[in-house]
Amino acid sequence: MPKVLITTVPFAEIDTLPIRLLKSAGIEFVINPYNRKLTDVELSELIDDFDVLIAGTEEISELVFKNAKKLKFISRVGIGLDSVDLINARKRNIKISYTADAPAPAVADLTIGFMISLLRSVTISNNLMHIGKWHRIFGRRLSEVTVGIIGVGRIGSLVLNHLLGFMPKKVLVHDVSNAKKLPTALNIEFVSKEELIKKSDIVSIHVPLSSTTNNMFTKATLLQMKQDAIIINTSRGGIINEEDLYDVMMSGHLSGAAIDVFRQEPYNGSLRQIERCILTAHMGSMSVDCRTRMEIEATEEAIRFIKGEKLKGEVPEFEYINRTIK
Amino acid sequence: MPKVLITTVPFAEIDTLPIRLLKSAGIEFVINPYNRKLTDVELSELIDDFDVLIAGTEEISELVFKNAKKLKFISRVGIGLDSVDLINARKRNIKISYTADAPAPAVADLTIGFMISLLRSVTISNNLMHIGKWHRIFGRRLSEVTVGIIGVGRIGSLVLNHLLGFMPKKVLVHDVSNAKKLPTALNIEFVSKEELIKKSDIVSIHVPLSSTTNNMFTKATLLQMKQDAIIINTSRGGIINEEDLYDVMMSGHLSGAAIDVFRQEPYNGSLRQIERCILTAHMGSMSVDCRTRMEIEATEEAIRFIKGEKLKGEVPEFEYINRTIK
Repeated sequence: MPKVLITTVPFAEIDTLPIRLLKSAGIEFVINPYNRKLTDVELSELIDDFDVLIAGTEEISELVFKNAKKLKFISRVGIGLDSVDLINARKRNIKISYTADAPAPAVADLTIGFMISLLRSVTISNNLMHIGKWHRIFGRRLSEVTVGIIGVGRIGSLVLNHLLGFMPKKVLVHDVSNAKKLPTALNIEFVSKEELIKKSDIVSIHVPLSSTTNNMFTKATLLQMKQDAIIINTSRGGIINEEDLYDVMMSGHLSGAAIDVFRQEPYNGSLRQIERCILTAHMGSMSVDCRTRMEIEATEEAIRFIKGEKLKGEVPEFEYINRTIK
Repeated sequence: MPKVLITTVPFAEIDTLPIRLLKSAGIEFVINPYNRKLTDVELSELIDDFDVLIAGTEEISELVFKNAKKLKFISRVGIGLDSVDLINARKRNIKISYTADAPAPAVADLTIGFMISLLRSVTISNNLMHIGKWHRIFGRRLSEVTVGIIGVGRIGSLVLNHLLGFMPKKVLVHDVSNAKKLPTALNIEFVSKEELIKKSDIVSIHVPLSSTTNNMFTKATLLQMKQDAIIINTSRGGIINEEDLYDVMMSGHLSGAAIDVFRQEPYNGSLRQIERCILTAHMGSMSVDCRTRMEIEATEEAIRFIKGEKLKGEVPEFEYINRTIK
């Protein structure tokens, strides 16, 4: 019987259904013994005996594949594939599925929370209050600002839906494709990335990490944003250059940032020194319902693969094509 | 020429229009020399020479009125009248106006920000991250919970409008009056206060402080809330008993709280010890646009009074009647 390695963390912490599903299918499995995101070296040392991997966002590199002699299937808990060497996987005939829709609602909610927290200096006032300092800080309302959304796929379009309850003065949208059905009640304008960056009071990023989006925000780009603008990244680390963001904010540019995703996770970098930079631990998808759905979907898919049933979440062909081009 | 005392803090910090309006009307004025909320003793020592008061939320008690021999008009920057001894004011024939509509949009925005921040443990993760601790905390989405709104007047109804972008599973509403036009797309049910408190995952308070609402949430009430519920107060201090909230949260009840208003401000009490209690410095109305509108409206009203023009924001009769009854 094929053996399953589960590396995503947490796993089955809230709802144990994924584990019960594996057990009732009689499938042998091992859960990440480190209980944190693995490096590719660690994963390469664990993988050799396993046929199926239920993976998080850890790097699945050539090194991993070299040591994964039995591996035939990767079931990603979540959506991003930036961590997976797709070309190598295909070469070795390893199939990959993901749970593309499940994380989106939780990420979109958190994004709106970040917008209001930053506009109203909630974390700063909260920290001051907890040390006994009373200072009434001015803020802005969502309906008074221009919101820029980069990427209006599954998550970006849900963010727009949430914004319907606030009706920002203006919503600037940039996407590599223009063919999106977006809420008509919002004052939306499709613009170039450059225009969005220059004109938005809030820039929120909702694109996958790829060779195109890697370092999309460097020092030069960040300095093109309005002096008092806000940047939010709930997509993938690497899209904003973290050191550049640190330098730019230290210089006094930008009124705030909220960063949930980092190039290297767990994160322990210099942005920790910037109080007006909200940092969270890759918690975008971490609502009980979304995370549970992701884990159950990924586990069911692994079981389908093992049983030779038709897969439901196979990574579409364009993801491989995009990778080959670059 | 009548003299104006301005006690509200901040005043004309962002937009100096209120000061320019007073100057161009040739009106002499003095701004709160303490640059913080005054006690009634301090106010009583300042007030004797002034005809008009542009007031914040400081207590305007009998002691103040005794020393306010010239006072003929109070223009409140904001809406609550809990701080004003209305009966005493009427006895002395002192007129009062307020800016009833201006603060509402800013308070409603902040309330939604608090909901998401608490549901997703943003302030807790942010604090952990800033000291280098990575811990992925589970949360809930707005669409998965039952939201309870106590009071659907100017602010509560705007909170409901914002919730349209999220569509909570259920919205429970309690109000002393039932005749409200609320968004029909939401799954709203009017219930008793008791039912709302017992069934809501989030309880958000949007009522004025009065003898009826004072200590609405004591230990007994707070313990009737769900174990993992959230309470938010952006209305007035005193409606939640702060010491009781501290005791209840210390005992492990409630998953979070966000408190923007306090019985005594500036606040320096025991809730500071509770990390999952977000504290902000009475910043509900502190968006640039709302605060500016409040200050300009209150100043224009003071000028209208001095010039003998028709007032636009006089406190309606029911506020006095309510006070007489109690």
